[in-house]
Amino acid sequence: MKAEIISVGTELLLGEITDTNASYLAGQLPLLGIDLYWISQVGDNQTRLVEVLKRAWQRSDLILITGGLGPTEDDLTREAIAEMLGEELRIDPVSEQRIRERFAQRGIEMAPSNIKQAAVIPSAKAIHNARGTAPGWWVEKDGHIVMAMPGPPGEMHHMWHTEVLPRLHQRATGAIIFSKTLKVFGLPEGTVGELVSPLLSSANPTLGVYAKADGIHLRFTAKAQSQKQAEEMVARGEARVRSILGESIWGTDNDTLASVVGHVLAEKGLSLAVMEYCTGGLLTATITDAPDVSVYFRGGLIPYSNEALIAYGVDAKLIYDYGAISTEMAQAMAEVGRLRLEADIGVSITGVIGPDELEGKPAGTMYIGIDSNESKKTIKGNYSGDRFRVKRLVTVAALFELRKMLLALD
Amino acid sequence: MKAEIISVGTELLLGEITDTNASYLAGQLPLLGIDLYWISQVGDNQTRLVEVLKRAWQRSDLILITGGLGPTEDDLTREAIAEMLGEELRIDPVSEQRIRERFAQRGIEMAPSNIKQAAVIPSAKAIHNARGTAPGWWVEKDGHIVMAMPGPPGEMHHMWHTEVLPRLHQRATGAIIFSKTLKVFGLPEGTVGELVSPLLSSANPTLGVYAKADGIHLRFTAKAQSQKQAEEMVARGEARVRSILGESIWGTDNDTLASVVGHVLAEKGLSLAVMEYCTGGLLTATITDAPDVSVYFRGGLIPYSNEALIAYGVDAKLIYDYGAISTEMAQAMAEVGRLRLEADIGVSITGVIGPDELEGKPAGTMYIGIDSNESKKTIKGNYSGDRFRVKRLVTVAALFELRKMLLALD
Repeated sequence: MKAEIISVGTELLLGEITDTNASYLAGQLPLLGIDLYWISQVGDNQTRLVEVLKRAWQRSDLILITGGLGPTEDDLTREAIAEMLGEELRIDPVSEQRIRERFAQRGIEMAPSNIKQAAVIPSAKAIHNARGTAPGWWVEKDGHIVMAMPGPPGEMHHMWHTEVLPRLHQRATGAIIFSKTLKVFGLPEGTVGELVSPLLSSANPTLGVYAKADGIHLRFTAKAQSQKQAEEMVARGEARVRSILGESIWGTDNDTLASVVGHVLAEKGLSLAVMEYCTGGLLTATITDAPDVSVYFRGGLIPYSNEALIAYGVDAKLIYDYGAISTEMAQAMAEVGRLRLEADIGVSITGVIGPDELEGKPAGTMYIGIDSNESKKTIKGNYSGDRFRVKRLVTVAALFELRKMLLALD
Repeated sequence: MKAEIISVGTELLLGEITDTNASYLAGQLPLLGIDLYWISQVGDNQTRLVEVLKRAWQRSDLILITGGLGPTEDDLTREAIAEMLGEELRIDPVSEQRIRERFAQRGIEMAPSNIKQAAVIPSAKAIHNARGTAPGWWVEKDGHIVMAMPGPPGEMHHMWHTEVLPRLHQRATGAIIFSKTLKVFGLPEGTVGELVSPLLSSANPTLGVYAKADGIHLRFTAKAQSQKQAEEMVARGEARVRSILGESIWGTDNDTLASVVGHVLAEKGLSLAVMEYCTGGLLTATITDAPDVSVYFRGGLIPYSNEALIAYGVDAKLIYDYGAISTEMAQAMAEVGRLRLEADIGVSITGVIGPDELEGKPAGTMYIGIDSNESKKTIKGNYSGDRFRVKRLVTVAALFELRKMLLALD
């Protein structure tokens, strides 16, 4: 089955929003073994929309449309599909009733234009929208399927999962596509690429190398007649990559560094405290984004001045002797945070976020401290880029170092 | 001038990345008065790429391409343009030299395939890529312009600004399009839409209403013969919206709530401290994302257990009397944070992040506290959605309430 995605909305052409609907749907189709060859964005203009639809009808079996189903004059997806197929629009009484009920429930008076959303054509079945007023359209004609879904991502995702995916599952008969991502930190993209280069030429499974915010991702994608077969092909590739990259691989698929660290902490029954200076709360916020964090996380201390460092319990003499940006300070912060919050492990970050140098150290100089009863460690690094990038990179590095230290504990 | 954007790469069709290049370029074209009618994504397949290019050549004056300029066999943008125009590829010696130098500087041996990146056709001029190895292509022929840029966003943005924008500025002669965004918090999207409804039917300037992470954005877009004229049209619309929405408007364009709050604090010479429980550092991290934050921000305290609350100086009796999720606790946290860090103003958040209820209060119950020498305030709210959404919403609300309180100070 050959698929095509069409995203409708002038706001896409004005650059006001990025088309995440297309990438979302594109990511879903491989799971059904459906090949996607074309994606396009078109504005709220019936002539151009019909032109795009006619071309899609010629070259694709499945056309997925998002957007243009709302109640205003700008919303033209229904009109364009009707024109392409030469069919007449009429009001579907079930949809009309549902739209009226939705407004009544909310106690809002319904503008008459909303009835437009209940329109269908003979080939179209209205699809219930549990998250909004505009129903979707499932059209089957001459061996083609056209599915029109609402543009707001929350409404679209819900309709996709509850209404569209089950219908497509029944029809999709081709090969299964299975993907798995391995996540790597501490090696540059080029080095990772060279190390795994023997696997890059494989046609099935394919291996892609991507630079991401939390390091390098290696993505295997296998195509096979069954899920089991595809998973086995990926497993063989994964074993080879693991033998090459070893402990640089910190997680897979939906793992985050924070969830991986949290898992190890919970498993070992250890608790964690943070004191971070220049990252301003990003490490603490990242840690607390993991699930069940209250099991192991005690809290964070974020000084944003030397006075605050002292108020949190860091010895003032340290600041005068070594400065706030130093190995000694990183170690002291990790220890003070740990003792202060009665945690087993303390982790700290201090450094120069920039743009100017501080204490004679250039922007991007960063110190990570890790402290436990048994061991102490500091890591110095130099990061380049704007402050958002530097904050993000050193936060990722701190979590990676923390994970390494935790795994080394027995 | 009619423009079209083509993004090249199989990873776009697999949903592995979202096409932010297209939305970036789409957002740039209105500033040049260039109309964009079509965007499409196509995979690394020469036949399909040539097909898309031929159609674009028929209907558009300016074709902007990103991706497919790398050194591997998959990178086919140069080959496809050459095929569409019926021209031969040859190696450009200046580009070859630059690519060789780039590798030499980095001390990396160059794979022979990289020479492919120095190829041009007679109609194409190689465009220097200051951020990577692959040069761009500027093609002019028969009244059409084709500009091919590298896919990595950092390389593309830099080439766009330094090489493409100046060239297009010389040619673009049409009307100027000017946009301005007003940012609103505290009113639902529907209410904002109703309040400004008289302006929504205006054809020029247009007014769009968008729900965003930090509230509702109202975007004016005016088309005029001069920048001045367009700005005046937007200013008239803005004055009307301001008279309707008043102090619900907290900023414009690139303002963030954190930058707006920071600006008021710096102007009034006041300092700020944070104590946040359930948001786990998000408020502190959001505040420290603003520029020059060290001028007014003292620091953050993030307890993630009752023990940590007490360690930070909150009276243990309060927890037993009222619980950690209470108006009294929010007030105490704001005050303790302020006194502890010797700040003028303290702000706090405590609440139930979920999924389970806590202290008999349902998930999404949130208390914000604000404390200064002169005034004390707590705000209770109930938020729905997953934890990421609840954390984000209450953080935005805390900053909005803080701004309101600061503006009320004389």
